[in-house]
Amino acid sequence: MEVTNRYITTKTHIDGAPKESLFELKTEALALSVEPGSNVVIVKNLYVSIDPYQINRMKTPGEVSHHLILLYQVRLWLVIDTYGVAKVVASGNPNFEKDDLVVGLITWGEYSVLKEGTILNKLDTVGFPLTYHVGILGLSGLAAYAGFFEVCKPKKGEKVFVSAASGSVGNMVGQYAKQLGCYVVGCAGTKQKVELLKEKLGFDDAFNYKEETDLQSALKRYFPDGIDIYFDNVGGEMLEAAVDNMNTFGRIAVCGVIAEYTDAGKRAAPDMLNVVYKRIRIQGYLAVDYLNVYEDFISTTSDHLRTGNMQALEDITSGVENIPSAFIGLFRGDNIGKKVVKLADE
Amino acid sequence: MEVTNRYITTKTHIDGAPKESLFELKTEALALSVEPGSNVVIVKNLYVSIDPYQINRMKTPGEVSHHLILLYQVRLWLVIDTYGVAKVVASGNPNFEKDDLVVGLITWGEYSVLKEGTILNKLDTVGFPLTYHVGILGLSGLAAYAGFFEVCKPKKGEKVFVSAASGSVGNMVGQYAKQLGCYVVGCAGTKQKVELLKEKLGFDDAFNYKEETDLQSALKRYFPDGIDIYFDNVGGEMLEAAVDNMNTFGRIAVCGVIAEYTDAGKRAAPDMLNVVYKRIRIQGYLAVDYLNVYEDFISTTSDHLRTGNMQALEDITSGVENIPSAFIGLFRGDNIGKKVVKLADE
Ligand SMILES: NC(=O)c1ccc[n+]([C@@H]2O[C@H](COP(=O)([O-])OP(=O)(O)OC[C@H]3O[C@@H](n4cnc5c(N)ncnc54)[C@H](OP(=O)(O)O)[C@@H]3O)[C@@H](O)[C@H]2O)c1
Ligand SMILES: NC(=O)c1ccc[n+]([C@@H]2O[C@H](COP(=O)([O-])OP(=O)(O)OC[C@H]3O[C@@H](n4cnc5c(N)ncnc54)[C@H](OP(=O)(O)O)[C@@H]3O)[C@@H](O)[C@H]2O)c1
Repeated sequence: MEVTNRYITTKTHIDGAPKESLFELKTEALALSVEPGSNVVIVKNLYVSIDPYQINRMKTPGEVSHHLILLYQVRLWLVIDTYGVAKVVASGNPNFEKDDLVVGLITWGEYSVLKEGTILNKLDTVGFPLTYHVGILGLSGLAAYAGFFEVCKPKKGEKVFVSAASGSVGNMVGQYAKQLGCYVVGCAGTKQKVELLKEKLGFDDAFNYKEETDLQSALKRYFPDGIDIYFDNVGGEMLEAAVDNMNTFGRIAVCGVIAEYTDAGKRAAPDMLNVVYKRIRIQGYLAVDYLNVYEDFISTTSDHLRTGNMQALEDITSGVENIPSAFIGLFRGDNIGKKVVKLADE
Repeated sequence: MEVTNRYITTKTHIDGAPKESLFELKTEALALSVEPGSNVVIVKNLYVSIDPYQINRMKTPGEVSHHLILLYQVRLWLVIDTYGVAKVVASGNPNFEKDDLVVGLITWGEYSVLKEGTILNKLDTVGFPLTYHVGILGLSGLAAYAGFFEVCKPKKGEKVFVSAASGSVGNMVGQYAKQLGCYVVGCAGTKQKVELLKEKLGFDDAFNYKEETDLQSALKRYFPDGIDIYFDNVGGEMLEAAVDNMNTFGRIAVCGVIAEYTDAGKRAAPDMLNVVYKRIRIQGYLAVDYLNVYEDFISTTSDHLRTGNMQALEDITSGVENIPSAFIGLFRGDNIGKKVVKLADE
């Protein structure tokens, strides 16, 4: 059988904020069968993850010095890989059969043709919706869990600040911190998000950073006794303000710096004298390094979701043609919770 | 008996580089006896330590937000405390007797009147010159030892970069790293210092940072395979360049940021995307937190000095009136090794 596969590509490298004009929806005829001897797996994409880090892979090569980004750069006019959930339609790989539900690195498209070596696993839904496995029980969730518990080494009662707190990673960090018995304040970019953090997700407090003229004093107001843990999703001025408000032996997990992704001029220049005198630890990390806690993460998080101690926050759009706007929206704060694009019914 | 005590004070707060005109040499009549019932200890200062951090205590209070600095601010027109070696001339404290050699927090002056609670210990010279106990076997040495071994957690064969490498802390870090079997490159501000690092102290390589127009490429030249450990004494542009050249899972010990002490405009804005993707750890620390390794530090360092595996690098000036210029010189790179001012013969 042959289908028409539609998928997203980039036409040029990106500097600054992403725009619709940088992307193109391409169309190809795709045979849903695997040649004898090939171990390719062809999947029908159901849900794909929309993540800020993709922009770093789309930048002009000279702009980035990190070998990991260079290694995994998005190639112009080619498919863009992404975390997501899919259904096998044809398989030359003995590990997968037609109709298997799988999770792993698929593409921003309707179908994915996956070569051997692609990260792909059979999906056990453990009774949760498929979308959960794209984010909450996927890499965003693991980033939150590992970043908070393994990197920050939190203790009950500690004061935790989370930026981009209504986002995919941020909202879960705040909820994990509440489960542990921390005092948690988050910041986000709209009134509605701030309300949601306080009312629905149980944050002790929250504020709209766009309404603050002086972030250092804002944090002083929300943390009169200082911050023990800053979970950084944004970098820039917020990181500077957090460093100024950290307590002695404070820990900063640098999960991401979205404010700097589209504008290198926004780089944080934290007061290193504070870093020395307060013995602050600033630690970058990647979720993928923490597969050793993956089972703990899934079981702990599943339990909290089942008992209602944690809430799932998702933001779902439909249609491959809407992937670019979903992605662009991340940098404008359009999303509330994990941004997912639905491509097909199961 | 009464003597004339001469000591250094500050006349105003300092912003920017320190100048002679900010200091004043004061004179007082001092009775070398202790009132009955008082537990004051009066000491004759022999050698005092000259340290960059003192400038942070001399700044206009609003310029610094770190409570530790505020708490220990130098007060205008009063004595300035410092690490040093002295001899007891009169004591109301049963732990000390006349003629005891002591080490601890004395003053930038000829005599010190030390109240109960002042950090002060009897000195066992273990066969080394008194000056060693001011720096090499004092707080500078402990800063180097703890910062390198405890904070950086080095492994044999790792590639280590040290800034202000001919300074008090820096030269010892490089020497410890060589003892462990690391590859060590240092930077310093003159040709003479660079030669000394390579010829006398056994650094694998060294360079004059003032002759480099592009620090990022300079580090790439000296570390074609990247830096595993950066021991930061200077901050600013050097920290940025180091972050760009760090290897995956690299560690940065932030011992101090002297380039930023006299000019907050020189604050480092490291590429946090590199911090994330390379999982870099940036850790501020203070030597005083590591008294638990003090005995190891003394025994290891004494052994290395005795066997000649490590060299003592000291820079000694005489006379209380020369304390300001010795201090000012730190920020101009005048000193080679531990800067000490001698105040009296033993
Ligand atoms: N280290 C890892 O392994 C790992 C894994 C996943 C994600 N990450 C990182 O974690 C961070 C959050 O990712 P996510 O997937 O959870 O995305 P997300 O938070 O769901 O979406 C991005 C959010 O960031 C906020 N934002 C956008 N531009 C901003 C700016 N200039 N300043 C402040 N906030 C801004 C927006 O919310 P507002 O309305 O609040 O502005 C937006 O909703 C990103 O930096 C990402 O790269 C790291
Ligand atoms: N965390 C702790 O517990 C602790 C303890 C002791 C010291 N420290 C810190 O460690 C650092 C070194 O202290 P130290 O006692 O060993 O002093 P030092 O290195 O003996 O003296 C300072 C040296 O720094 C260099 N320097 C001055 N201004 C500079 C600039 N703008 N850029 C680059 N280099 C500059 C100069 O050498 P060049 O000729 O190379 O420029 C100068 O000789 C300082 O930042 C200090 O505050 C921290």
